[in-house]
Amino acid sequence: MSARVRRLEERDKAKWLGLFKGYVEFYKATVPEDVIEATWQRLMVGQADFHIALVAVDDADQPVGLAHVLFHRSTWSPTQYCYLEDLFVDPDRRLEGIGRALIEAVYREADARKCTRTYWATQEFNYRARALYDQVATRSPFIQYRR
Amino acid sequence: MSARVRRLEERDKAKWLGLFKGYVEFYKATVPEDVIEATWQRLMVGQADFHIALVAVDDADQPVGLAHVLFHRSTWSPTQYCYLEDLFVDPDRRLEGIGRALIEAVYREADARKCTRTYWATQEFNYRARALYDQVATRSPFIQYRR
Amino acid sequence: MSARVRRLEERDKAKWLGLFKGYVEFYKATVPEDVIEATWQRLMVGQADFHIALVAVDDADQPVGLAHVLFHRSTWSPTQYCYLEDLFVDPDRRLEGIGRALIEAVYREADARKCTRTYWATQEFNYRARALYDQVATRSPFIQYRR
Amino acid sequence: MSARVRRLEERDKAKWLGLFKGYVEFYKATVPEDVIEATWQRLMVGQADFHIALVAVDDADQPVGLAHVLFHRSTWSPTQYCYLEDLFVDPDRRLEGIGRALIEAVYREADARKCTRTYWATQEFNYRARALYDQVATRSPFIQYRR
Repeated sequence: MSARVRRLEERDKAKWLGLFKGYVEFYKATVPEDVIEATWQRLMVGQADFHIALVAVDDADQPVGLAHVLFHRSTWSPTQYCYLEDLFVDPDRRLEGIGRALIEAVYREADARKCTRTYWATQEFNYRARALYDQVATRSPFIQYRR
Repeated sequence: MSARVRRLEERDKAKWLGLFKGYVEFYKATVPEDVIEATWQRLMVGQADFHIALVAVDDADQPVGLAHVLFHRSTWSPTQYCYLEDLFVDPDRRLEGIGRALIEAVYREADARKCTRTYWATQEFNYRARALYDQVATRSPFIQYRR
Repeated sequence: MSARVRRLEERDKAKWLGLFKGYVEFYKATVPEDVIEATWQRLMVGQADFHIALVAVDDADQPVGLAHVLFHRSTWSPTQYCYLEDLFVDPDRRLEGIGRALIEAVYREADARKCTRTYWATQEFNYRARALYDQVATRSPFIQYRR
Repeated sequence: MSARVRRLEERDKAKWLGLFKGYVEFYKATVPEDVIEATWQRLMVGQADFHIALVAVDDADQPVGLAHVLFHRSTWSPTQYCYLEDLFVDPDRRLEGIGRALIEAVYREADARKCTRTYWATQEFNYRARALYDQVATRSPFIQYRR
């Protein structure tokens, strides 16, 4: 129940790849290999305008879940907003509190930056995820439009 | 019907203030004066990590609508995403195609940057806005959670 | 603004037909002529298990809007529920309070029968209708599934 | 996995009471004892304007789930509509296909009456139920308003 969460590190690459690809597959989407590699590089460099990556790890310090978090400016706030773009837990490790531990770690990162908003988007019919989100956050009345 | 859209400029400050405050008021929210001033300064400086501001102008070149657009990195794309954070039209100038002209200008900015996604959020019950959005974009199944 | 609402009568047939067909068309649906005729007959007979029909009328006592209301048993209540199945206003007579007058008349019919619930369904994207419904009723969290 | 479904009978009263009360409790609602008793009586009498009751039974022929189905007239159809008002499965018997077996039995009853529509309502956030409904039915865009 008490998954440990830490920053993503170089040695995590194989596990991270597996998780990120599982996540993309969940959305029945595809991200080209070179884009995934570029994302990995950007996460490792730690670009100021890029996401931070958190991983939940098992007893052997191996990643079993990930969270990619973007801090960005808002016209409404002196500080940054915290946008959780990606959240994924190894399907074999569900219902162990890993997703919750990741979200709580995201909240700590947001607090450290005095973010006035932490938010994310999820598909209306992602019932499993929403069962967790309803416990740790508030469903806003906002829906998303896309070109 | 054919509102002209251009970048926000220093001389627009009074009109911009009126529009932005009207927008915040629409959401029954408040943004402190100093935050509004900081947002104005950031828009004028044109910080790399900050929004660009577009205004729709009337025949006298006076702003009658605004759009604040943030370009940000995504873990899913080699290029930036285009996030339309704020969109507002002077209540006295509704139904003239101003909102649509602003969105189309946002699309052009996104295209110029080869953004692979342009998106925004709106309240489920903002019927007037949605009647327009349904015409120029797609309602995604994504809903927003907030801490 | 103060549309009068009364029961549908034999002499209203032509106007009722126009309204009911306009309503069906609004849903991009079709109802065969013989079913429409059967519905008319049932409304005129006033079958105990069938809907009552209300019409909003203009100054010349001509129907400009209709409401078909079914009272049915519920396992949850000693009295009947009031289900507003159909509601339609002549497109040329919108924004005059006719829809509201019809709903208020439905409420009176429900009260006369001591109904413990009055309800109806509408498409999530029927913004014009919802703008009215939000004023006179409560959006429940219930969504509809159909075979 | 293959729960048997049959009509509710007199000897089922104790089990039916337990299930119906569990169902009402699920909605954090209350139904007075005398209304529950009246509902039971109406189900036993088999009133023409009242629901039929189906129960899923275990190997000992004891009810472990219920469905109350109302057939009612529609202005849109020569035959009746099939409205599944109540559906509930013993919390100790979840994930065994009992809910699905009940819905399939409802479909057979609807088919026997040549119903042109079978439908029900559920709370948007009833994720467990919706996971099943998404498999056996279609989510319509209809939402429910109530006085």
